[in-house]
Amino acid sequence: MTQLSNFQKIIDDFLEQEQYDPKYWTPHEILARLIEELGEVARIINREYGPKLPKPGEEIEELSNEIGDILYGLACLANIEDINLDEAMQSAIHKAKTRDKNRFPRKSD
Amino acid sequence: MTQLSNFQKIIDDFLEQEQYDPKYWTPHEILARLIEELGEVARIINREYGPKLPKPGEEIEELSNEIGDILYGLACLANIEDINLDEAMQSAIHKAKTRDKNRFPRKSD
Amino acid sequence: MTQLSNFQKIIDDFLEQEQYDPKYWTPHEILARLIEELGEVARIINREYGPKLPKPGEEIEELSNEIGDILYGLACLANIEDINLDEAMQSAIHKAKTRDKNRFPRKSD
Amino acid sequence: MTQLSNFQKIIDDFLEQEQYDPKYWTPHEILARLIEELGEVARIINREYGPKLPKPGEEIEELSNEIGDILYGLACLANIEDINLDEAMQSAIHKAKTRDKNRFPRKSD
Repeated sequence: MTQLSNFQKIIDDFLEQEQYDPKYWTPHEILARLIEELGEVARIINREYGPKLPKPGEEIEELSNEIGDILYGLACLANIEDINLDEAMQSAIHKAKTRDKNRFPRKSD
Repeated sequence: MTQLSNFQKIIDDFLEQEQYDPKYWTPHEILARLIEELGEVARIINREYGPKLPKPGEEIEELSNEIGDILYGLACLANIEDINLDEAMQSAIHKAKTRDKNRFPRKSD
Repeated sequence: MTQLSNFQKIIDDFLEQEQYDPKYWTPHEILARLIEELGEVARIINREYGPKLPKPGEEIEELSNEIGDILYGLACLANIEDINLDEAMQSAIHKAKTRDKNRFPRKSD
Repeated sequence: MTQLSNFQKIIDDFLEQEQYDPKYWTPHEILARLIEELGEVARIINREYGPKLPKPGEEIEELSNEIGDILYGLACLANIEDINLDEAMQSAIHKAKTRDKNRFPRKSD
């Protein structure tokens, strides 16, 4: 079993071992990468659920790959900023279960 | 220890139990939420590392919270699309270690 | 009548006159700003057309303002990169009328 | 001379004449398209100014084209929402000259 924070460590170890220079991109560069990947997710969603007909010959990269790339980018940003992604996720789930709990319609409404 | 896929199940169980209608937002709605959260990340990065002086009285929401919200949104999208986030992350790490391994400068360069 | 390229010049003159240092943000910083503004657009679209109930007391900034901010950011980026926005728009319209013309369903279909 | 609002009308006339069904994408679909195009801008910025080495054989679409596509998408969204883009741009410039005027460092600082 691998936690999110283990993934963070695996990535940090890999970048260290490869001796990349710089080891991490800057936050602005990672952000640019994240919007690029989210743009790929958007393209796939508009193909799957939207009005756009595919360009002939154009391949749709798998949504799973694009989401994986976003996770990778978030892990890099979190490593730079000393953020624990397991705690970040737990906190988001906690917020959904408390503060935001009654902001959405229910079947009984 | 909690895996990413466990987080996905925790979220799915919670949404089921609360009887939200619809249980999940549509992919387009989740995407809109993801760009909103990524925009919050961008705002914080421009404050921390960029040229923008803060508006008086304006609060910076913690980067960790915003990243947590993105993880939550990705988990919802993955649940709809039947994607395993642990596999997505492992696959992204594998790609960094193989296909993309030599695309970045090293200290020895 | 004001063309897009006139707006670009008005902005450039203003930044020059104010003696900002640096005169322009870097492309990465402008990009971060654009993501932030597009995130605001997304928030409004999810409110107007989506499932999310507003937080009590939360104000929705007008969509027109957010779109104006995106136009302003694009003009800055175009000024740095020596891009004429009128030509960019004309070229996009030309592409819609030619290359992409038959990629969308019609009433007669 | 062509104003932004003229571009809006040219696009509206074109979509009407072609009898597309639906005439406009939904706001969520246009948003997804805008994210996709902004992602392309990000990819180019990371190539031009960032650390990423290009993939062999990969072509960089011209930044001007991507910005043009964003302008086109914004014009469609503005048409649906009955927003005048000239006024939106003027308002953003006005805000830069008044409310935000002293939020950035000057050469004299």
